Amino acid sequence: MAKSVVLGFSGGLDTTFCVKHFQDKGYDIHSIIVNTGGFNEEELKKIEAHAYALGVKTHTTIDAVKNYYDRIVKYLIFGNVLKNNTYPLSVSAERLVQALHMAEHAKKLNADAVAHGSTGAGNDQVRFDMILNTVTPGIEIITPIRDLKLSREEEIEYLKSKGVDMNFAKAAYSINKGLWGTSVGGRETLTSKGFLPDEAWPIQVTKSEPEEVKLSFEKGELIAIDGKKFAHPTEAIQHLQSVAAPFGIGRDIHVGDTIIGIKGRVGFEAAAPVVIIKAHHALEKHVLTKWQLPMKDNLSIFYGNYLHEGQILDPVMRDIEAYFTSAQAHVTGDVFVQLLPYRFQILGIESKYDLMSAKFGKYGEMNNGWTGEDVRGFSKIFGNQVAIYESVKFNANDKT
Amino acid sequence: MAKSVVLGFSGGLDTTFCVKHFQDKGYDIHSIIVNTGGFNEEELKKIEAHAYALGVKTHTTIDAVKNYYDRIVKYLIFGNVLKNNTYPLSVSAERLVQALHMAEHAKKLNADAVAHGSTGAGNDQVRFDMILNTVTPGIEIITPIRDLKLSREEEIEYLKSKGVDMNFAKAAYSINKGLWGTSVGGRETLTSKGFLPDEAWPIQVTKSEPEEVKLSFEKGELIAIDGKKFAHPTEAIQHLQSVAAPFGIGRDIHVGDTIIGIKGRVGFEAAAPVVIIKAHHALEKHVLTKWQLPMKDNLSIFYGNYLHEGQILDPVMRDIEAYFTSAQAHVTGDVFVQLLPYRFQILGIESKYDLMSAKFGKYGEMNNGWTGEDVRGFSKIFGNQVAIYESVKFNANDKT
Amino acid sequence: MAKSVVLGFSGGLDTTFCVKHFQDKGYDIHSIIVNTGGFNEEELKKIEAHAYALGVKTHTTIDAVKNYYDRIVKYLIFGNVLKNNTYPLSVSAERLVQALHMAEHAKKLNADAVAHGSTGAGNDQVRFDMILNTVTPGIEIITPIRDLKLSREEEIEYLKSKGVDMNFAKAAYSINKGLWGTSVGGRETLTSKGFLPDEAWPIQVTKSEPEEVKLSFEKGELIAIDGKKFAHPTEAIQHLQSVAAPFGIGRDIHVGDTIIGIKGRVGFEAAAPVVIIKAHHALEKHVLTKWQLPMKDNLSIFYGNYLHEGQILDPVMRDIEAYFTSAQAHVTGDVFVQLLPYRFQILGIESKYDLMSAKFGKYGEMNNGWTGEDVRGFSKIFGNQVAIYESVKFNANDKT
Amino acid sequence: MAKSVVLGFSGGLDTTFCVKHFQDKGYDIHSIIVNTGGFNEEELKKIEAHAYALGVKTHTTIDAVKNYYDRIVKYLIFGNVLKNNTYPLSVSAERLVQALHMAEHAKKLNADAVAHGSTGAGNDQVRFDMILNTVTPGIEIITPIRDLKLSREEEIEYLKSKGVDMNFAKAAYSINKGLWGTSVGGRETLTSKGFLPDEAWPIQVTKSEPEEVKLSFEKGELIAIDGKKFAHPTEAIQHLQSVAAPFGIGRDIHVGDTIIGIKGRVGFEAAAPVVIIKAHHALEKHVLTKWQLPMKDNLSIFYGNYLHEGQILDPVMRDIEAYFTSAQAHVTGDVFVQLLPYRFQILGIESKYDLMSAKFGKYGEMNNGWTGEDVRGFSKIFGNQVAIYESVKFNANDKT
Repeated sequence: MAKSVVLGFSGGLDTTFCVKHFQDKGYDIHSIIVNTGGFNEEELKKIEAHAYALGVKTHTTIDAVKNYYDRIVKYLIFGNVLKNNTYPLSVSAERLVQALHMAEHAKKLNADAVAHGSTGAGNDQVRFDMILNTVTPGIEIITPIRDLKLSREEEIEYLKSKGVDMNFAKAAYSINKGLWGTSVGGRETLTSKGFLPDEAWPIQVTKSEPEEVKLSFEKGELIAIDGKKFAHPTEAIQHLQSVAAPFGIGRDIHVGDTIIGIKGRVGFEAAAPVVIIKAHHALEKHVLTKWQLPMKDNLSIFYGNYLHEGQILDPVMRDIEAYFTSAQAHVTGDVFVQLLPYRFQILGIESKYDLMSAKFGKYGEMNNGWTGEDVRGFSKIFGNQVAIYESVKFNANDKT
Repeated sequence: MAKSVVLGFSGGLDTTFCVKHFQDKGYDIHSIIVNTGGFNEEELKKIEAHAYALGVKTHTTIDAVKNYYDRIVKYLIFGNVLKNNTYPLSVSAERLVQALHMAEHAKKLNADAVAHGSTGAGNDQVRFDMILNTVTPGIEIITPIRDLKLSREEEIEYLKSKGVDMNFAKAAYSINKGLWGTSVGGRETLTSKGFLPDEAWPIQVTKSEPEEVKLSFEKGELIAIDGKKFAHPTEAIQHLQSVAAPFGIGRDIHVGDTIIGIKGRVGFEAAAPVVIIKAHHALEKHVLTKWQLPMKDNLSIFYGNYLHEGQILDPVMRDIEAYFTSAQAHVTGDVFVQLLPYRFQILGIESKYDLMSAKFGKYGEMNNGWTGEDVRGFSKIFGNQVAIYESVKFNANDKT
Repeated sequence: MAKSVVLGFSGGLDTTFCVKHFQDKGYDIHSIIVNTGGFNEEELKKIEAHAYALGVKTHTTIDAVKNYYDRIVKYLIFGNVLKNNTYPLSVSAERLVQALHMAEHAKKLNADAVAHGSTGAGNDQVRFDMILNTVTPGIEIITPIRDLKLSREEEIEYLKSKGVDMNFAKAAYSINKGLWGTSVGGRETLTSKGFLPDEAWPIQVTKSEPEEVKLSFEKGELIAIDGKKFAHPTEAIQHLQSVAAPFGIGRDIHVGDTIIGIKGRVGFEAAAPVVIIKAHHALEKHVLTKWQLPMKDNLSIFYGNYLHEGQILDPVMRDIEAYFTSAQAHVTGDVFVQLLPYRFQILGIESKYDLMSAKFGKYGEMNNGWTGEDVRGFSKIFGNQVAIYESVKFNANDKT
Repeated sequence: MAKSVVLGFSGGLDTTFCVKHFQDKGYDIHSIIVNTGGFNEEELKKIEAHAYALGVKTHTTIDAVKNYYDRIVKYLIFGNVLKNNTYPLSVSAERLVQALHMAEHAKKLNADAVAHGSTGAGNDQVRFDMILNTVTPGIEIITPIRDLKLSREEEIEYLKSKGVDMNFAKAAYSINKGLWGTSVGGRETLTSKGFLPDEAWPIQVTKSEPEEVKLSFEKGELIAIDGKKFAHPTEAIQHLQSVAAPFGIGRDIHVGDTIIGIKGRVGFEAAAPVVIIKAHHALEKHVLTKWQLPMKDNLSIFYGNYLHEGQILDPVMRDIEAYFTSAQAHVTGDVFVQLLPYRFQILGIESKYDLMSAKFGKYGEMNNGWTGEDVRGFSKIFGNQVAIYESVKFNANDKT
């Protein structure tokens, strides 16, 4: 009986190569594509047709957009996660959901092997390997492109020899699109200095007149835009994306540490993610207490970095998610945002949980509920230890 | 013999009131103004004249710009400190340097009292109180405005009765200018929703054509712009400010926790600070290791918040500064920034300490110095514990 | 109509003074004692009789032991909280529960004032003030001892003048007993050097032969000892206390920062708390992942310090508790402990969630599930960035 | 010309095997032993003789005790580093110094390869690999035991076939001794439950009468014991070890995460390290400010864990060391410690930098320098935000 392999399949050169390669080896091939928001129905149909044309035994399309949100994106919003204070983790996060669905599929089919098209040069190989090692520990992982160390040209030659006819031209920019943003890599991002030219960005800037939007959050989740409620936050995200992206908002270049130790640079455009995170953060500044804010920040930095490294299954991530969820208890209210070409401005918020209220004093203008004497006493005690410290140091004849 | 008081004096309504108030009480008044970058020579002269006209015994002007940088601003850059990820702490930080100079002055004059014009409603009272309690523990602190709970109108009436002639009109916006930015408070910032109108911003937007600047850092300090070296980083900051401010860059509204427990909102414009911090951070992303980056971030959040609360004299701040200084050892190189109306874009960096180098692999394209097999082994071990965890959980018949 | 005051009442000198003082002022006095484990039924009866003899209108006894555990002690165990790595927060934590019950009582009685017997010298005044300010914001707080700045002698004289007959002798050691330990202050703890003499410790050492106990935890809570299940964890704690305390286990001196800025020193004996925390931690070392352990530690340090300062009502504490609760999901198993005079030894653990299992490899002896080649690859990648860093530094001709 | 290999050599079975193995392969062998405190002169002589008898070309003995202290142990004291709050990192830390010296030796000899005797089952392989990859990037790393996956029996057979005559008996307990403690592994530590029997501990308990010692620290370093100054802190450590070890102090079992993902358990005896760390910490509690203490703790946890994983060359470690060094500025004074069988007690401290001084108030007894009114004001402001939070929540009709 033929051995079976579950293959993550996008229809590109690498995964097309993998199909033919596994055919050569006599495998039954079950291709799978996990859509985390990057493909429309038509594209998915084309990929399916391509897979069957190549000779896969079955091809499966998973709509993972909501699962992706529920499992990951929600917490990226709760934590205001921007890697290195810049990047919404667009690609890193969706790879994990894709790997989890692949692993489930392999278990369901009782496959002998599971394969991904990663090379040996990037982060994705680690993300896929780790999740597969954990979720399908008995099933062999095969990575033909990495293992055979093939060049692009060798792959093309091989596919031509197998009679495969597809577009072999290399795109000038490598694009990865998903619910939480699109990454853009190209010649300029391979060095430390270049910036992407206008034509590299998938979405062109077509809006020039300012627009204002009202984002409504409930317990940290985006549930409505301009008063319109959505059935699921993913729809709100996608709607905001359609409104904000034509401004060219959310474009930047991320510089970061890859899992494999080198530094990497990648462009991204992520209008909705960046606007949502900044709006959510603005709301939090009003409804969270002084210590809730920095404590969350510390956990977010770790959460983003560790997720980026593929460690989504470590239970420490569940602990942090429990923390985030608790912290969202009162993150409910409206945020007003002005959208402009290439930028946006948080205008303000409204929330029944707003801790900034004239009832308790106007900052710098009025003090209700406490007196100047109270503050004088506070200053005395709040600075007491440092005053003691200075006095002790002085008495010890220490002039430092 | 008359008692003497050192009075922090800006020449505004509150501190003018204090002069006359102390005269009434029979004090010898030694006014002092500590310039942290907000005043030009002419303005300082005027303030001095005003002080003497009011009848102070001595008036002292301290140029504290460099001291302010050396003691505080330098570390705000090292730490990329933006309070709540937004505000460069423009006003909070300079108050501390002002208080320190006032305290030194009071010690030198052997004054009986030291006074500041703070009300009971804001943060500054705590900053002044704490530093004075610590540095001049035996000297009485007097705060007439806070203690007498006077309204603006009562102050004006009193001053008029004393024959003081000055501009008593209340500005629509309260402005505080310094080396590290200008704060702007007004009607709109007293609520959670309003945004400042164009006329509120002190610097008007006069540039519309993009410009490119090259910022050169050495061990984390800005030493040159477009190849021009400056005698001191404060001059580089001021030069950048003159170039970037006319773009309207660095305008935003900060929402934050005051020391006294309420939330406050304040506008600020801080072109140079925001550009410098983002440029500095971009360089750090290239030259610091994976763990150097988040460890610094955690300390920065604390440093900014604690400084904001006036705790600059706590030795924990020296410890963090030692950390920051160590982390800057290789933060040397050039950052290329594009300035545009209301925004700017980091284009890239050049540094001999850049850890991103094609020599070690091109991210996602090429792996030098390691093999796919190495990464496969890495993935195995890096995910080993979580795989064990999942297996143990499964065997314990735990379905969560 | 007479004004009413709810008075926290322990029956000691200070609170006895308060009763007579409020009588003088014409108040209806409602005394309340909140038992957090320090009093037995007989003692509570005596205190009640004493209160009524002094003339209170009502006296209320609250059994808050379980509430104290559910609200605080549970999380101190989850977090392995030892302030400054030493002190189980015995007294600090129980004050908060006492204040919360007092506040509830005052609200229920619609009292005009609420009073506590704190002096101006310690932490408790802040804990009581803050909780009362928050929970009963409209009700006046009165603190006669603090406000009148009375000496012990003046209080005694006053009480004698009122015909109060009680034991006025000052105990050599001030003792505070509760579920989570007993604090002991005296002459020796007022300086930095003295250690408490044997007679100062409330529980004398009467056991000398080693005993072994098995502590069973379920999701982080102590539910059984030596196989005996208890109806509530507080009973397990009290049972363990009866077994371990006669060994003199858990005695030490805590040195710490008071809320008011000075350093303080206090002895404590806390056999059960210290054994439970160390046993719980031992179990966690086996069932939590590598990153779950330090992330919890960081939060615990903050949680303990902030609780100590009376900030139990800040919602950041709820967030941390959510984190702790999540982290306890698999902290289930038995811990074997040997009790000896003045010390104890964790012998080992048994848990179905133990991540240490020969199935996955014996540390240093055997590797199942991975190969030496895997580790070689891991080392390569794990050290990749630092190797790059060293190479870059070398090439930059930097000899540091 | 023959290839040359630098071989870390302890004279045990594994490294003896390596010598013969490399002879077979035709290598010139340069053995090296780096003493971090575990060997006396006689033992080192024996190892040298054994190496030459086996046929090495050169054998080098490095006395690295002081270097080990200066580079690592000093910071473990500054940070009070106990992994998982238990283990002074005795073995993990010294491996790094050994690897660094091996690497330097290999560079000096311009060797073709460098070899260590690690198996594929433990942490040490990663520590050696990583440092060698970094410091000697061009030099091949060879690990015969790991690569050949040899059993103990196969090694012995091979050595016998080569005429090697040595003690082949396996010790019941594997012992690793160094300046900072001795690790003890055996049958009992391979499971989660067993405790080491008395005979397993290298140092037997011979003292039963309590002794008191005075440890004098200067800027965090142990410089004198009972008034006797030592030429170098390593001598003070060794002296304290000779005094405290016969009490059986510092024995425990560490449970922790290995670098390779499994959990491991190891016994250790470390009298001097544990006493020094606790004494040092006691002094810090008196001389550091409230925030200096926990900030250090957070960094220490990371520092210990990351050092354990071999990452000593990451510059983030230099940053933390700079922090630690700054924090030690006033950690100067005497600590009084009572030594007893199997335990010790910190009695108190004396320091001119002690922040606990009756001059500033006696905790709970007396308040100098502030009033009850000051504290009342402090409580008001310190609790202001949480009171606002409760009020806002209540008004929002939120009953949670």
